[in-house]
Amino acid sequence: MPRITSVEVIDVRFPTSLTRDGSDAMNKDGDHSAAYVVLHTDEPSLAGYGFTFTIGRGTDLVAAAATQRADPLIGREVDDLCENLGAIYRELQSDSQLRWLGPDKGVIHLALAAVMNAVWDLAARRAGVPLWRLLTDMSPQQLVEAADLRYLADVLTPDQAVALLEQKESGRKQRIEELEATGYPCYTTSAGWLGYSDDKLRMLCEEAVAAGYKHVKLKVGADLADDIRRCGIAREVIGPDGHLMIDANQVWEVPQAIEWVNALAEFDPLWIEEPTSPDDILGHAAIRKAIAPIGVATGEHGMNRVLFKQLFQAGAIDFCQLDAARLGSVNEVLAVYLLAAKFDVPVCPHAGGVGLCELVQHLAIFDYVAVSGDLDGRVTEYVDHLHEHFVEPCVVRNGAYVVPVAPGYSAEMHRESLQTYQYPHGSYWAALP
Amino acid sequence: MPRITSVEVIDVRFPTSLTRDGSDAMNKDGDHSAAYVVLHTDEPSLAGYGFTFTIGRGTDLVAAAATQRADPLIGREVDDLCENLGAIYRELQSDSQLRWLGPDKGVIHLALAAVMNAVWDLAARRAGVPLWRLLTDMSPQQLVEAADLRYLADVLTPDQAVALLEQKESGRKQRIEELEATGYPCYTTSAGWLGYSDDKLRMLCEEAVAAGYKHVKLKVGADLADDIRRCGIAREVIGPDGHLMIDANQVWEVPQAIEWVNALAEFDPLWIEEPTSPDDILGHAAIRKAIAPIGVATGEHGMNRVLFKQLFQAGAIDFCQLDAARLGSVNEVLAVYLLAAKFDVPVCPHAGGVGLCELVQHLAIFDYVAVSGDLDGRVTEYVDHLHEHFVEPCVVRNGAYVVPVAPGYSAEMHRESLQTYQYPHGSYWAALP
Repeated sequence: MPRITSVEVIDVRFPTSLTRDGSDAMNKDGDHSAAYVVLHTDEPSLAGYGFTFTIGRGTDLVAAAATQRADPLIGREVDDLCENLGAIYRELQSDSQLRWLGPDKGVIHLALAAVMNAVWDLAARRAGVPLWRLLTDMSPQQLVEAADLRYLADVLTPDQAVALLEQKESGRKQRIEELEATGYPCYTTSAGWLGYSDDKLRMLCEEAVAAGYKHVKLKVGADLADDIRRCGIAREVIGPDGHLMIDANQVWEVPQAIEWVNALAEFDPLWIEEPTSPDDILGHAAIRKAIAPIGVATGEHGMNRVLFKQLFQAGAIDFCQLDAARLGSVNEVLAVYLLAAKFDVPVCPHAGGVGLCELVQHLAIFDYVAVSGDLDGRVTEYVDHLHEHFVEPCVVRNGAYVVPVAPGYSAEMHRESLQTYQYPHGSYWAALP
Repeated sequence: MPRITSVEVIDVRFPTSLTRDGSDAMNKDGDHSAAYVVLHTDEPSLAGYGFTFTIGRGTDLVAAAATQRADPLIGREVDDLCENLGAIYRELQSDSQLRWLGPDKGVIHLALAAVMNAVWDLAARRAGVPLWRLLTDMSPQQLVEAADLRYLADVLTPDQAVALLEQKESGRKQRIEELEATGYPCYTTSAGWLGYSDDKLRMLCEEAVAAGYKHVKLKVGADLADDIRRCGIAREVIGPDGHLMIDANQVWEVPQAIEWVNALAEFDPLWIEEPTSPDDILGHAAIRKAIAPIGVATGEHGMNRVLFKQLFQAGAIDFCQLDAARLGSVNEVLAVYLLAAKFDVPVCPHAGGVGLCELVQHLAIFDYVAVSGDLDGRVTEYVDHLHEHFVEPCVVRNGAYVVPVAPGYSAEMHRESLQTYQYPHGSYWAALP
């Protein structure tokens, strides 16, 4: 029986600030980064890979926290962990001294996500299946046992969650076949980073349409005149039937958000993403009311399930953009999918960064197959950056994620990438003057 | 003109888990700790001291984050900082790469609190006055310029905040004299830690009453039968006119909180503190509605001003227990006091831990003198632990904080304490087998 023998945690940073890939009104110069975790076992061919996504400084803090978080895993039997994925999550999560630094938010929670993502990857590899398949092979009872439902009982008890999953149990197989034929629909953000010129924006929108995308997303919020011009370019390229999304990355006050978004209404945006503080549930609810029928989307900074519960309770959002590496791994992601199903809000996961696309494809497929059974209003983010560093990169064809087949959570990076971009001693960073 | 020459950050941990001081239903074995910051200047007699409070593991993460947060201070002129306390806060807070790890929550925000608390301490020392006096000497305009009002514009604009402070400008001097005569009222939590026996509980309640306290607080939430027995003892000792508060430290689900608190209603608690997740604004609102007239209190884990804004908007709390070392120092504390005044909710700051009493006495005095002008419903926590480590410990007499007179924010610890309890190499920890 294999055991976990050691935990390797790597601070890896890619110098994306040089090209302004990923630039937006709040984050002008991020270096897309990860706190990357490898769970080594005494079987050389078996390891678990996971990470959380960061944007440069402070990745070292998350890496140090991940090392502490993962410590209780050393010496554990892999099969024990795989059979009790809820129990090991709760054990790591409930360290009361680390909990004080949250609870369930910020650096310690990002670190929990990185570690438990690696545990889920290990479980899928041990089972010899991709993560989405591991999840769709689990019974409603098993899924609910793995989900973090703490603090949700006022809207969703475990029994209610089981009932919700049982409603969609029949038809799982058929929906898998459907996705294997068509893929899971996605949209692209690669066109619209704020740092790009108008010409580059137009060209990238044209390329997106040519590649089969029906949705295009632009960053907004730095300058209204620029936003009007850029939205005009995008709308012109995608035509009246294409979907235009806009994303302000938290730069506005609530009244300002309402005014600014209404000034862009002529371009018929499908949603405004992150109009204000990600913590402001009631603010999002007020914005949503004031800009309808334009939708409100948020979630990439949604710190935990308790925040999402309230976003749903308050009727604050039209689209839930949970983040696979900010929530406490699959355990907490499950809870948010269940809440979203209960409140009938479509989940369109946040992706991009480093490796988030690799992760969320599994989650979106699982949602369609086992939770929502619905594609209506659902589209998963795709950003065409940094996939070359992954051993099993996601594949997008005709504006849809191709269903992954390799065992695991698609989270493993190439050793060479790690050696090059490990911070600060990897060959890239060490060679800087 | 003095300049900041270096920043010293110390992980200091006191072994309180040995005596179960501070034990509650969520935190059974915390070692009360601090990430402690010293801003050294080129004037040997001038330094700034600050900290944030933690409970053991992970203090190293906060200390590492504080080192990063404080880095831009090195080389700065002290007087420049003191004249622009809002500007330096915003500069440190808005590092976009660190912001990604929050924003404004968890480890990076605790670290900001520690660093900016030291800057405020330095400013008060440079002015030669205690922090409360530095604040009460500032004009409404200066206070609002220092306050972090971002994301609050839907309920409180800077102009409204100035107007609010102007209403209480006259009478500042008289209220100071009043507090200098009587002190600021406090209550004690030292009696009711969950790990104490019934006999110890009774004895400590008797001692509290004898010492002039009118309020006593008990930890609850582990076992209902125990809670009924312990509340009975406390109520018997303090009599029908004393105030009994109870504190569950986040252990309940929302429906469970309602049931449990109502089962303790016969003991007439003034408030239930932290009944559920500190992030659950709507949950607190639901609990408050279901247990009236028992009040709801929360705030020691209130992560930032955006959370407090919503607690007020939702009518979720009767008492605001902001924490001086979890919010981003005085800058963000100012914002929460202003919000509380606008919504007419009394602020009863969280204290205890390490050094929180030393800090909050300044804030409570400032609130009475310059913001609320009111003592009704207001009582500040006091816990009789670990004061011996501070150079200017707070003094409590007849159930009230004596107005401090020494320059600064009362945050400086004795060098000997730091040398003994620095983790892991201080003499206490190094000597453990």
